[in-house]
Amino acid sequence: MEFPSKVLEDAVNQYAKLPGVGKRTALRLVLHLLKQDEPQLQELAASTLRLKSHLKFCKECFNISDDVICEICADAGRDETILCVVEDLRDVMAIENTNYFNGRYHVLGGLVSPLDGIGPDDLEVESLIQRIENGKVKELIFAISPTMEGDTTSFYISKRVKEFPVVISTIARGISIGSELEYADEVTLGRSLADRIPFKI
Amino acid sequence: MEFPSKVLEDAVNQYAKLPGVGKRTALRLVLHLLKQDEPQLQELAASTLRLKSHLKFCKECFNISDDVICEICADAGRDETILCVVEDLRDVMAIENTNYFNGRYHVLGGLVSPLDGIGPDDLEVESLIQRIENGKVKELIFAISPTMEGDTTSFYISKRVKEFPVVISTIARGISIGSELEYADEVTLGRSLADRIPFKI
Repeated sequence: MEFPSKVLEDAVNQYAKLPGVGKRTALRLVLHLLKQDEPQLQELAASTLRLKSHLKFCKECFNISDDVICEICADAGRDETILCVVEDLRDVMAIENTNYFNGRYHVLGGLVSPLDGIGPDDLEVESLIQRIENGKVKELIFAISPTMEGDTTSFYISKRVKEFPVVISTIARGISIGSELEYADEVTLGRSLADRIPFKI
Repeated sequence: MEFPSKVLEDAVNQYAKLPGVGKRTALRLVLHLLKQDEPQLQELAASTLRLKSHLKFCKECFNISDDVICEICADAGRDETILCVVEDLRDVMAIENTNYFNGRYHVLGGLVSPLDGIGPDDLEVESLIQRIENGKVKELIFAISPTMEGDTTSFYISKRVKEFPVVISTIARGISIGSELEYADEVTLGRSLADRIPFKI
C-alpha cells in the first residue's frame, strides 16, 4: 500500500501489529481515530502506556492485578486448599462469572506449545509447584481448554506434581448443555459416553 | 465483564471504542499488548497521538497529507483539468494503485447519509464547487461506491455543478473482470446490459 503520509503509514503499521489486524483493518481503525477528538486519542494512548507502568501480576496466582496480591488471593473467604489451574486471565473471568468456584487460581500465562517455541519454563509452572510444596493445597483442578496444547500442559503438570499428596481433577468434557446430540462431534460424544456419570434428579 | 484490574478495564474500554472491536476482541488486543515490550507500547501510543498533532489535510484536495499541499496536488505533471471525486483516502490509494489516472482528486471526507445525520455541509462539497468556480477544471469523475449513500452524494453534487461548463462522468458499473456471469447480482447484470459498450479487440 502506498500511503500519502508517513505519519499515517507509521500508525497503520503499528496497529497492524495487533493480533488479527491486517493492514486494511489497521487503516480503517486509524481513519476512525483521525475523526476523534484529541482528548479521546490521548485517553487511548495513556491507557495503552498504563498497561506497562501500572499493571502488576499477583505474586500468588499470577493473575493480572492492580496490587501486589490480587483481590481473589487477598479474599480470606476463598478456599486456599483448592487451586484452579488456568491458561490466562480470560479463563479466570469466565469461571468467576459462573459463581460455581470458591477456591483460588493459578494462572499459567499460556500453554505448552512446542510449535510456537513455548515450553514449561515460559509458564508459571515452577511457581505452581512451589505453592503445592508449601503444603496448603489439597486439590488441583485443571480448567484448561481440551486442545492439543492444553492436554500437553495438563499432562506435564500432572507428572510434575505426582509426588505430592494432591488430588488432581479436570473440568468435565462432554455435550454442552442445551446443544443437540446429533450435532456433537464424534470425539466429544464418544468421550461423554465413556465418561458417563450417575444420573441425578 | 468483571475485570480483576481497573487499569486493564480502562484499556479494554478504550480499545472497544474502535470500529468493529467488541469487548472480547478488545480484551484479546490488550492481553497481546501486555506481552509486548515497553518501547513497542510507546511507539503505538506515540503514533496514535501523532495522528492529531502531525497529520494535515491537503488544502487543495483534502486528502490526508504530511504537508499543507499533498504530493499529488504538488505534482505539476498531473492534469489539473480532471478531478476525481472520492469518498476518502482509501479510494485515492485504490485508484493510485491502478496507475490508470493522471488527474487530481477531491476527497469529500464521507458520503451524504441522512440516517447517520451526515449532510452535504459535513463534507468537502463547498470547496469542490470553489475549485470548479476557479475555472481550471474541465471534467469531474465520480469514483464513488454505487450504494444508496454514494448515489445520493453523486446526485447532489451533479445538481450543484450543473451551471458550470464541466463534463461529469462516473466510473463504469458492470461485471467485475474475471468473475462468473451466473453469480452476478441481477441489478448489476441488468445495468451492464443496458449500459453496454462497443466491443473492442
